Amino acid sequence: MRGIPLTRRQVLKRFGAIGGSSLVLTAMDAWELMGEPSRPRPVLASGERPPGRVVILGAGISGLVTGYELGKLDYDYRILEARDWVGGLCWTVRRGDTHTEIGGETQTCEFDEGLYFNGGAWRIPNADTSVLEYCRELDVPLEIFIDVADANYFYEENAELGPLSGKRVRLREVKADLWGSTAELLAKAMDQGDIDVTLSEEDKERLVEFLVRAGYLDSEDHAYRPPEMRGSEERWDLSALLSSGFGSRVRSLYEGVGGPAPVFQPVGGMQQIPFAFQRAIGDRITFRAEVRSIRNTEDEVRIVWRDTSTGEMREERADYCVCCLPMSVLKSIDVNLSPEMAAAIDNTGHSDSAKMGLQMRRRFWEQDDGIFGGHLWSRSLELGEFSYPSNDYYTQKGVLLGYYGSGAQAGLADLTVAGRIDHVVSQASKVHPQMRQELESAYAVWWDKVPFSQGAYGRSPSADARAQLAKADGRLYFGSAGTGSRPAWLEGAIQAAWRTVETLHQRVMQG
Amino acid sequence: MRGIPLTRRQVLKRFGAIGGSSLVLTAMDAWELMGEPSRPRPVLASGERPPGRVVILGAGISGLVTGYELGKLDYDYRILEARDWVGGLCWTVRRGDTHTEIGGETQTCEFDEGLYFNGGAWRIPNADTSVLEYCRELDVPLEIFIDVADANYFYEENAELGPLSGKRVRLREVKADLWGSTAELLAKAMDQGDIDVTLSEEDKERLVEFLVRAGYLDSEDHAYRPPEMRGSEERWDLSALLSSGFGSRVRSLYEGVGGPAPVFQPVGGMQQIPFAFQRAIGDRITFRAEVRSIRNTEDEVRIVWRDTSTGEMREERADYCVCCLPMSVLKSIDVNLSPEMAAAIDNTGHSDSAKMGLQMRRRFWEQDDGIFGGHLWSRSLELGEFSYPSNDYYTQKGVLLGYYGSGAQAGLADLTVAGRIDHVVSQASKVHPQMRQELESAYAVWWDKVPFSQGAYGRSPSADARAQLAKADGRLYFGSAGTGSRPAWLEGAIQAAWRTVETLHQRVMQG
Repeated sequence: MRGIPLTRRQVLKRFGAIGGSSLVLTAMDAWELMGEPSRPRPVLASGERPPGRVVILGAGISGLVTGYELGKLDYDYRILEARDWVGGLCWTVRRGDTHTEIGGETQTCEFDEGLYFNGGAWRIPNADTSVLEYCRELDVPLEIFIDVADANYFYEENAELGPLSGKRVRLREVKADLWGSTAELLAKAMDQGDIDVTLSEEDKERLVEFLVRAGYLDSEDHAYRPPEMRGSEERWDLSALLSSGFGSRVRSLYEGVGGPAPVFQPVGGMQQIPFAFQRAIGDRITFRAEVRSIRNTEDEVRIVWRDTSTGEMREERADYCVCCLPMSVLKSIDVNLSPEMAAAIDNTGHSDSAKMGLQMRRRFWEQDDGIFGGHLWSRSLELGEFSYPSNDYYTQKGVLLGYYGSGAQAGLADLTVAGRIDHVVSQASKVHPQMRQELESAYAVWWDKVPFSQGAYGRSPSADARAQLAKADGRLYFGSAGTGSRPAWLEGAIQAAWRTVETLHQRVMQG
Repeated sequence: MRGIPLTRRQVLKRFGAIGGSSLVLTAMDAWELMGEPSRPRPVLASGERPPGRVVILGAGISGLVTGYELGKLDYDYRILEARDWVGGLCWTVRRGDTHTEIGGETQTCEFDEGLYFNGGAWRIPNADTSVLEYCRELDVPLEIFIDVADANYFYEENAELGPLSGKRVRLREVKADLWGSTAELLAKAMDQGDIDVTLSEEDKERLVEFLVRAGYLDSEDHAYRPPEMRGSEERWDLSALLSSGFGSRVRSLYEGVGGPAPVFQPVGGMQQIPFAFQRAIGDRITFRAEVRSIRNTEDEVRIVWRDTSTGEMREERADYCVCCLPMSVLKSIDVNLSPEMAAAIDNTGHSDSAKMGLQMRRRFWEQDDGIFGGHLWSRSLELGEFSYPSNDYYTQKGVLLGYYGSGAQAGLADLTVAGRIDHVVSQASKVHPQMRQELESAYAVWWDKVPFSQGAYGRSPSADARAQLAKADGRLYFGSAGTGSRPAWLEGAIQAAWRTVETLHQRVMQG
């Protein structure tokens, strides 16, 4: 506003905030005029099967969406996937799941049947309506992901914080104390006539009434009185609270990493979304097909792949190829690229994020701490984001996300899995001393070490590189989330897929 | 707590807020010393089947809990229930459900398979740990009930509100504008040195920094700038906003009717709780047994009941009887009571609440308005609480709770069901003009007209009457929620059942 040009996403967020998803979709329909991807529309199809066969590399979200939408346009296509399951970074780890780290150890998940955690993607902002509309279309049940809970703790070990150092401080304490102090200061200043407010006497009274109620002030002397709901009646020292920085999570309209509430998650784990695409797509996916080389010629594309169950090398030929492999994997494959495209691919990067799920015998965070979802915030603890499950409340056991951060932090990437688990349990025990006693099993997903991913979500390439990646290189297209501007989100994968399908389809129909 | 004695519930709430449910349970164990009910403990049992057979009247929550707990103590018992289903006021209305109103009309629910609404009880505060612990014990899956959402509307038609009259005003607008104005006034007063704050210069800077971030102030001139997330950039006139009263829903720690978040609901509707008790209890329930008289003699209790399927009159004899019928129903049954007990029963009352569920072809409140759960707040509209479903987000259809208020409001009790539906649709259309077009079917539950309920939840009787109702009248006990201090909540029904089982069991074991 105020003269600053908006990005497309900002405009969509604004529409979403005002009008919900149907307005967003209308806006997105209009967007084609501006050259941004929207969902490919069958109206472009001729009614006959479009000429040309397409091979898609990778059955992560972008590959699945590409296949699903090409299927709606009646294309003949096939997806090659190196693993024997779909989803890529959208992996929900559950009993029996297994992987061998690059350079090492094999884990097999030993969680109880029915327990799980999302090893990669895990939350869907309500502004990400493309994801949510697919959930509607493909019957993926959703539930609320609690991104921020008033019961959540801050924990810092820092002598400068004085009385707050080494203490578990609840978000609700911070909210009540900071707004309470604010209301108290303003109300008392108004009482003393210290302040020039251009309001009628009646409105001034109403404002004070608001401050008293909203800030939990004493109705007589207008001093802040911590409310019962805050949990303890001692307020924190204001000076200590101000220097703690905890107040940065207190706003009139709070927004978590997933945006304003509600944030969603599929019931049963994030991988329910790729599973639903798989059901819709049917048998067009070839599993255990590890791509080794891509030959992009004038007439066709030839993909050489290795059958990981037999070791046999095979070849797939198609008129077009859409590569939805992670950019990190693409970089290690033998492909004949134009120099411009090779440079653009080199411009991409990726996160080294890692996650660890820990199955606990007892949901002590619910039973002992009254915490239902949300996160533990700490810079002192080397845990990244430590999170409580937003599902299966008041059941017996549960899986904590004990770690979500850089895989390299604290030298963790160099430790054995057992060593990493010990690190997480030791650190988290400072806030939750029950950790060690209640731990039953754990599973570590260090994405840099996961074969066929070789890294977590991408880092958005430069605008120039993105423009290049949006083009075809001969008969080869690039459709993974890592080619776009929101590579860390499912929405980014969908947008990348839409853009690719649209570009490819226009070429074929003009053909 | 500044010298004010706490009620038991306040203490438990405090424990719950601080320590979660395990601390609450510990507190409740200690409570027996104070004569308040706690969950009956099998340790009191002798190891042999306790002597004496018990008949329980009514399979609402209190009757089911009474039976379940007596069963754990190895009692021989039977429950008589007038309907052919369990739950009483805990009724989830779904396809095929039917009832004939007292004095009139028959409805049969025509919702699509899988759609439903809670005709009675519908939300579980997180402080109500007895209910939640039973959900854990009986495997009733829970999900979040959204009691307050920032996207929810206020709507008032009132000339005194000036620009706000007849407008849909979102809670997030009210929050952002009121806190924003508060932060702005304080920050500007501090800038001008108008205000005497006993903080160091450094802390003053940090306080202003907090106000700027938390209140969305301009970092230069400290004027409030409505954030993008608010949805529209025009702030409401402060004077109009202050006189609207909307600010009463804005607090540093907001609490809805169900208490602070999270509030819970069973997946699939509230009646999943009585269904789970029914599964646990097995075949000890006699359905279609309408109680006609209770004869309480020195040696036994004789219950005469009518088999509603055949019209036949039957008799049940037992050593003790626990009456868990609604007090309104009890008042119309032929019982020989002591004068003290008759007076206490006369002291009870009940709510005439009514609810209406409306199946909508399209979840327009989600798609068009971005509303996911919560309520519409309006005193102008005669709808009571109008609420959006906190389940099955982003599916195609949904059931709105179009009405939750007094059944007698606006003469509704005197209208046909169709007339009541028309009233709700007309009123709600002022906020949601899609209502009429999207309506597929509706179901009205006017509890005063529902046979075997004859009213909604009870009104808590006086303390004297409660003390009387907690005693046995000969061999007859009273265990419905209406005998206690929280008759409108499942927790109240459970507490009443626990108290009764404990009292009865002590008598039997001392016998």
